[in-house]
Amino acid sequence: MAVGYSGPGTLHPVTGIRLGIARAGIPKPDRRDLVIIECAAGTRAAAVFTKNRFAAAPVLLCREHLARSMPRVLVINTGFANAATGAPGLEDARRVCASLAPFAGCRTDEVLPFSTGVIGERLPVERIVAGLDACLASLDANAWAEAAHGIMTTDTVAKGVSRQVDVGGSIVTITGIAKGAGMIRPDMATMLAFIATDAVVAPDVLQGALDAAVALSFNRITVDGDTSTNDSCLLLATGRAGNAELRERESRDYGVFAAALREVCAELAWMIVRDAEGATRFVTVTVTGAASDADCAEVAFTVAHSPLVKTALFAGDPNWGRIVAAVGRAPVAGIDPALVTLDLNGVRVVTGGGIDPGYTEARGAEAMRAEEIVIRIGLGAGPGHATVWTSDLSHDYVRINAEYRS
Amino acid sequence: MAVGYSGPGTLHPVTGIRLGIARAGIPKPDRRDLVIIECAAGTRAAAVFTKNRFAAAPVLLCREHLARSMPRVLVINTGFANAATGAPGLEDARRVCASLAPFAGCRTDEVLPFSTGVIGERLPVERIVAGLDACLASLDANAWAEAAHGIMTTDTVAKGVSRQVDVGGSIVTITGIAKGAGMIRPDMATMLAFIATDAVVAPDVLQGALDAAVALSFNRITVDGDTSTNDSCLLLATGRAGNAELRERESRDYGVFAAALREVCAELAWMIVRDAEGATRFVTVTVTGAASDADCAEVAFTVAHSPLVKTALFAGDPNWGRIVAAVGRAPVAGIDPALVTLDLNGVRVVTGGGIDPGYTEARGAEAMRAEEIVIRIGLGAGPGHATVWTSDLSHDYVRINAEYRS
Repeated sequence: MAVGYSGPGTLHPVTGIRLGIARAGIPKPDRRDLVIIECAAGTRAAAVFTKNRFAAAPVLLCREHLARSMPRVLVINTGFANAATGAPGLEDARRVCASLAPFAGCRTDEVLPFSTGVIGERLPVERIVAGLDACLASLDANAWAEAAHGIMTTDTVAKGVSRQVDVGGSIVTITGIAKGAGMIRPDMATMLAFIATDAVVAPDVLQGALDAAVALSFNRITVDGDTSTNDSCLLLATGRAGNAELRERESRDYGVFAAALREVCAELAWMIVRDAEGATRFVTVTVTGAASDADCAEVAFTVAHSPLVKTALFAGDPNWGRIVAAVGRAPVAGIDPALVTLDLNGVRVVTGGGIDPGYTEARGAEAMRAEEIVIRIGLGAGPGHATVWTSDLSHDYVRINAEYRS
Repeated sequence: MAVGYSGPGTLHPVTGIRLGIARAGIPKPDRRDLVIIECAAGTRAAAVFTKNRFAAAPVLLCREHLARSMPRVLVINTGFANAATGAPGLEDARRVCASLAPFAGCRTDEVLPFSTGVIGERLPVERIVAGLDACLASLDANAWAEAAHGIMTTDTVAKGVSRQVDVGGSIVTITGIAKGAGMIRPDMATMLAFIATDAVVAPDVLQGALDAAVALSFNRITVDGDTSTNDSCLLLATGRAGNAELRERESRDYGVFAAALREVCAELAWMIVRDAEGATRFVTVTVTGAASDADCAEVAFTVAHSPLVKTALFAGDPNWGRIVAAVGRAPVAGIDPALVTLDLNGVRVVTGGGIDPGYTEARGAEAMRAEEIVIRIGLGAGPGHATVWTSDLSHDYVRINAEYRS
């Protein structure tokens, strides 16, 4: 069960977007494993993809297609990631797109493929192609929740969020879904996230809004530090909301839209951490006082990746020595232990690099009993700040990942 | 139980060195937890310490004392690391040294303190001081194995190794002991290692020999990526072997000595990995073909730290996709997936960034059944090479670290 999250609330349809789901038997029979997202003509797209050098075949093909065309249809399969599959894997992804294009009434380069699952094994193209008919037949503007289910792998709960905001007198909807529970340390994107809006947004402004939102949401979460080969985050803008086109990043209307988009991205990112493999805690690590935001993020990620910190969180043990040890090894210049402070869920633990005079083990243990833990680290040496979200390291994380392919 | 290691063989005494062990009840009653290493007048010392900014009080005091004097006596306690204890912690370490000095017949700055255990809690100075008498009374040149036991914390087996080599006609002995099983990602040193030799070595040459040995042994192992606050590695040279002083790094005699020292350091480092918390596998990660040795080490550490790779190793699952995904996210320039090769215990798995035509899952599964796994990664883009040793991530790692303070 995810920590403090049991599933999406209302997911508003986005004018111009329809979603289809099928059971194509890709990894195993009788499981929703194939999703199509269709978008109306004129839809604009922004995207961010993994920076992993072993970018999967579908990621390479998405980049190629997006450089030539705006997408009309997205096809997403679970079970196999089609990563580290070389030239044959790229050919497999092309075959899926080419098979779908005539049925969807578009060109092959207007199809974007996405895959998630085991790395290194070939895509079962025939099973996917065989499932396309059923998937297209089910297209529905109200199928966001079903689509969120259809892209799950080790996820235990579907992830989706929706916002409606007033942009210059027009109601704009932003709805997004995501999947991911392990191999989570997005580097410019997350596992898979699909967000759509009916807002009218200039193309470069759309990409800028997505970049800004991703930087402080998907790029600030980690489960295990393992950046996936398939991370992809796509933002579709159908332009049907009737608002005046958002062209200026300084405008109030853009600010409203960008804030809502950032909220959607952050909510989806948090859902991934709440549903992290084996997670029993949702942990917020906030670092202030390094020279820059980037340095603060480095320190926060060092703490968030520490297996010793993560096992202590699992145990509910206020073993703060492990936290300061992680701060002490963070690859950042200018940390002075004598200035460091540490708070666990509001309880001051460390002042001046050593134990706070008011701290007692009982207060620490009480603070750590919560399911949601805020670790606040002050470095006292600069204006930077950053927040990172992570989970704990439990028996179930080991079990899930040891048994993943069995 | 450690993987492929059940305890030290013969540990030759080193002329000029005596060791004492006591049960001082520091963390809990009736456990060997206090060790003294006494060295003869004229002994030279070289040392490397943690680069963690939260360097423990004993590390700070060791640096201070070594800057002024050569050591005559070392005092090592387990149970409490005396790290992140601020000025009072430093005062505690000074009191231990000052209490020992008169009994040992030396000055306070000729005492070097070492601590290992829980971070953040104050040292029980009275219990340590009360144990010094018994410890001194037990001093014995043949007590290396007992001392190796006396410095253990979560270690399941004592770690020691001994070499004798002919240096210009004189038999030189090098004997070392170490402890460590978790919080292991040494950065210029390991948890605690004490090595002694009777060789006559010029002081700067001694430090150079230790630096070179540590760089390719303790600094190339990782259990959990967590650099300790207390890492210390000390090399004592009593100068009683009768060899001509080693002054030139280019000499054949220095080469023989340095090679033996490196062997001792490497053996101790491997023992730490074999006894890593919860370890069921001993894993060697060799990377060749990046631009430099340092880049190869970065890639090797990225693989060795990946929780997904480590859980697959625990499961004996040839889930090579996780290995290439880790290679793909390593923070190193110039990796071309199309040139990457991967071998698991001699079985070629990946060629040209994708699955090798001759690979079968059955061969991979067979290779992964071994207790000792060699992961060999070729990058094909430069002359670099590096080897790193690590363990797997098991249920017991989580259990040990979740229960550590309970």
